[in-house]
Amino acid sequence: MKIYADAQSGNCYKVKLMCALLNIEHEWIHVDILAGDTNAQAFLAMNPNGKIPLLALDDGRHLWESNAIINYLASGSDLLPTDVFALAKVQQWQFFEQYSHEPYIAVARFIAKYLGLPESKKADYQAKQTGGHKALAVMESQLAQTPFLTGQRVTTADVSLYGYTHVAHEGGFELSLYPNVQAWLSRIEALPNYIAMDVSEGKA
Amino acid sequence: MKIYADAQSGNCYKVKLMCALLNIEHEWIHVDILAGDTNAQAFLAMNPNGKIPLLALDDGRHLWESNAIINYLASGSDLLPTDVFALAKVQQWQFFEQYSHEPYIAVARFIAKYLGLPESKKADYQAKQTGGHKALAVMESQLAQTPFLTGQRVTTADVSLYGYTHVAHEGGFELSLYPNVQAWLSRIEALPNYIAMDVSEGKA
Ligand SMILES: N[C@@H](CCC(=O)N[C@@H](CS)C(=O)NCC(=O)O)C(=O)O
Ligand SMILES: N[C@@H](CCC(=O)N[C@@H](CS)C(=O)NCC(=O)O)C(=O)O
Repeated sequence: MKIYADAQSGNCYKVKLMCALLNIEHEWIHVDILAGDTNAQAFLAMNPNGKIPLLALDDGRHLWESNAIINYLASGSDLLPTDVFALAKVQQWQFFEQYSHEPYIAVARFIAKYLGLPESKKADYQAKQTGGHKALAVMESQLAQTPFLTGQRVTTADVSLYGYTHVAHEGGFELSLYPNVQAWLSRIEALPNYIAMDVSEGKA
Repeated sequence: MKIYADAQSGNCYKVKLMCALLNIEHEWIHVDILAGDTNAQAFLAMNPNGKIPLLALDDGRHLWESNAIINYLASGSDLLPTDVFALAKVQQWQFFEQYSHEPYIAVARFIAKYLGLPESKKADYQAKQTGGHKALAVMESQLAQTPFLTGQRVTTADVSLYGYTHVAHEGGFELSLYPNVQAWLSRIEALPNYIAMDVSEGKA
């Protein structure tokens, strides 16, 4: 299988981390968004939404959306529960990630880290702080009760939320305000086969 | 089971439609966001993210996020495939809905229909048009190939996308530009037990 991605993107890193945790062999194909790779006809034929990450199976089928990809990769493993309610809880946290977390935390990080927080983006950046802190507080309230987001065991929901939470400080979020989130980050980093986000990778 | 919701919200209507399609008995509890219901302590104890829809099971468990709720309700039915790749495709479209569709189409509709498109929101409204049209074009490209988003059969992905697509004109989107989307809307409206969004409901 091939994974079209950019290691600097948290959404892509989720897929990379999942492959590491489950020892899934794959070919990593670096995609350069700024060079227009995601708008090329050949790419749009695989994902009409023009976004990475994208999974290309050897039989020619394609799957996009980071959280759908990691659930697919994890299916049949301990990282994805089979109980119907437990599985719904995993998805609850993943939809929360895409709707209430990523659009604030990942975007604030992008403005600060990649755009260098220019004057013209300061209002936008400030607006993202409120939503980002709200999302972190929601996680904190759950992680005060259970070691992982859906309970006693790590699932794909934790991988989804880990992606941008562990680099939230790069978006200006002070994580020491959220001790249970910090303890959870450490728990994930202690998992067998864990790999860190390596922003230099794939550029060679 | 109880569903905390507001019939004017497309996210809540998804759950209502799913219950209708599958004949699921439920108690509908109207929540008034503007009156602060979602910020009340008792509500936040059920969903720390303070959003509707919210599903409360009779045994005291809670589930939030519209798409997680409808997948839970549909599990075991024809509306949710069991094949691992087919299920991943359902989720792909649902994450697309939350990330690339709802934030544009639902928000443009909110600005136009509920705020009355005030001068101060015109730039925001215009910005939402681009993303909304992009999302509709992505759907159009898929629906030119298959009758439903993931293939030959209707799934929860179609219910998720139907929620705000069928009222996209209220956000200023001309749906006649997307004939395959329009044909798909009609296909959903022809399903047994289909019910329309009734914005007066729950207000009695
Ligand atoms: N909801 C998508 C978001 C993916 C996304 O936003 N990818 C960015 C890189 S982090 C991208 O490809 N942007 C290019 C573009 O939107 O044109 C997911 O979770 O996979
Ligand atoms: N991602 C959520 C979005 C839910 C949502 O935005 N609900 C709105 C009503 S449509 C709400 O409860 N807003 C109140 C608030 O955010 O304070 C879902 O799909 O359930």
